[in-house]
Amino acid sequence: MNLTVALDAMGGDHGPSVVVPAAFRVLAEHPELYLIMVGNQGILEAELARHSCPDAKRVSMVHASQEVRMDELPSQALRNKKDSSMRVAIDLVKRGEAHACVSAGNTGALMATARFVLKTLPGIDRPAIIAALPSVTGHTHVLDLGANVESTPQQLFQFAVMGSVLVSAVDNISRPTVGLLNIGQEEMKGNESVKEAAKLLAASDIHYVGFVEGDDIYRGTANVIVCDGFVGNVALKSSEGVASMIGHFIRQEFRRSFWSRAVGFIAFPVLRAFRRRIDPREYNGASFVGLRGIVIKSHGGADVIAFSRAISEAIAEIRKNVPERISQHLESVLSQAEAV
Amino acid sequence: MNLTVALDAMGGDHGPSVVVPAAFRVLAEHPELYLIMVGNQGILEAELARHSCPDAKRVSMVHASQEVRMDELPSQALRNKKDSSMRVAIDLVKRGEAHACVSAGNTGALMATARFVLKTLPGIDRPAIIAALPSVTGHTHVLDLGANVESTPQQLFQFAVMGSVLVSAVDNISRPTVGLLNIGQEEMKGNESVKEAAKLLAASDIHYVGFVEGDDIYRGTANVIVCDGFVGNVALKSSEGVASMIGHFIRQEFRRSFWSRAVGFIAFPVLRAFRRRIDPREYNGASFVGLRGIVIKSHGGADVIAFSRAISEAIAEIRKNVPERISQHLESVLSQAEAV
Repeated sequence: MNLTVALDAMGGDHGPSVVVPAAFRVLAEHPELYLIMVGNQGILEAELARHSCPDAKRVSMVHASQEVRMDELPSQALRNKKDSSMRVAIDLVKRGEAHACVSAGNTGALMATARFVLKTLPGIDRPAIIAALPSVTGHTHVLDLGANVESTPQQLFQFAVMGSVLVSAVDNISRPTVGLLNIGQEEMKGNESVKEAAKLLAASDIHYVGFVEGDDIYRGTANVIVCDGFVGNVALKSSEGVASMIGHFIRQEFRRSFWSRAVGFIAFPVLRAFRRRIDPREYNGASFVGLRGIVIKSHGGADVIAFSRAISEAIAEIRKNVPERISQHLESVLSQAEAV
Repeated sequence: MNLTVALDAMGGDHGPSVVVPAAFRVLAEHPELYLIMVGNQGILEAELARHSCPDAKRVSMVHASQEVRMDELPSQALRNKKDSSMRVAIDLVKRGEAHACVSAGNTGALMATARFVLKTLPGIDRPAIIAALPSVTGHTHVLDLGANVESTPQQLFQFAVMGSVLVSAVDNISRPTVGLLNIGQEEMKGNESVKEAAKLLAASDIHYVGFVEGDDIYRGTANVIVCDGFVGNVALKSSEGVASMIGHFIRQEFRRSFWSRAVGFIAFPVLRAFRRRIDPREYNGASFVGLRGIVIKSHGGADVIAFSRAISEAIAEIRKNVPERISQHLESVLSQAEAV
């Protein structure tokens, strides 16, 4: 089966200078992959000309006259940027000309546009952002990472269904474990929203393992951890902050004196092996789930390796037909609920 | 001025076996300090007898016949454990026989009991938990870390006042910077509660610096970061989780082969220096602010060094008369609000 992915080539901090080499990198690994570059034709042609690539025949181009700025209001981008690279890439998915799209652009605008163009799946109130974070035992998928600032218990339940189906498909786990993020494991803890969501989950066919806490993300206590977007975003950013501070302190200590520099030189291969295990680039590519189509958000500052990873995520989700699976699972959950 | 601190000697995972040696450690550093050990007299006497300490004359004992279990419901502890070591220690603060109390016991029970016995300060709806977390530039005080599962904009504003006054007193900063934790720095982002709190802060005499994100805790963007207790607790636990996972990976990489073990041996002093900078024991001792008295919560699993740190926090807050300062500042804020 041929796969086609549309790339918002103008999105992110680096635009085509990252998107084009990342595209060629992924094309070399996937002979069945076709890519559509969406963006300013002149700029794209210049960037493509800078690379000689045997896979260039599997790259096509679609011109878009506008770009969405990183600080633009989602509502304004939706209204005023109907020919942006982001919008045109999503339109390609809507029209069935691409199986998925990948963008490193403005998260809010990408979500608003994707929701407007593709629509949500039946039974889903709000899409969510899901990504894999590293854990001691492998990785943990967490959602919502910031699409919604508040969530009802029903929405948290929908997040759990979407997360469970996605992880089941992408990680080949038949019944992924799902935990609900709370501030204690005891049943009486937490706000009304998580308490109510816990009841819905316990009564469902989801493999619900109960309340989990922030540190459980990195312990691998559950395959999927569910929370509202405000909490998930703070957890993600706090975690990035700690990891970055620790990296800073390690570098500082190894640069403190001649002796520690020498030690750092000797320890370099070990430290590099360690860094690979928590390399945020390996975890780039968050999915917008709950839409009638596959949209992958890359980090805005992604480099070539990180953006390649986001394209690979799109390929994995196309192969596993994630939106269709979520839709089917939701139908069975909803019909069960009606039968009760 | 003599200082008296009451210690809940039975609290935490280790009870007197940690509290007693920690007490002697801190007594040696503070000749003006008097400590009251509260707990089972037989057990305490046995533990005290195991240590010979020149400062033993500055230790007194108050018997308490009960203990609050770590998993006990706060409401049940309050109702059924009126002679618990925790309750008796707080009663000593209430009666003015101690200037502060320190407990490593059940957080919920400690907060409920402290609130019931000591009462909140005028103008404060709900007490909050505040602690210093390490940052690239020093440390950042964050509140609320879990006393409240939801907060109104007015309560977030009160947290900001309390945090600002505490940091001003303890860190000798005349006008500490205060940030409001959100999921983006733009004004349109976030839920209604943080947006409304932002308006209250911008109109106040607090040195408010705007919205901050999770990673700003560790960047040192603001002296004080304010959030509701659910979000704060998740941020704290996620951060602990990441730090612990990174520590695990570092140890694993340095144990992978004979060569990496040898490198680890050479790198040990550097790695130790690094670890000291993020040693969670150095950050032990969270304050319950907003009460008519000083209550310090130590981590339940605290060792001697960590528990000593919690006692030192109590001493610092007594010296700076933190509750009185918060009360005075609130009065001036409230009278300003009335004048408008």
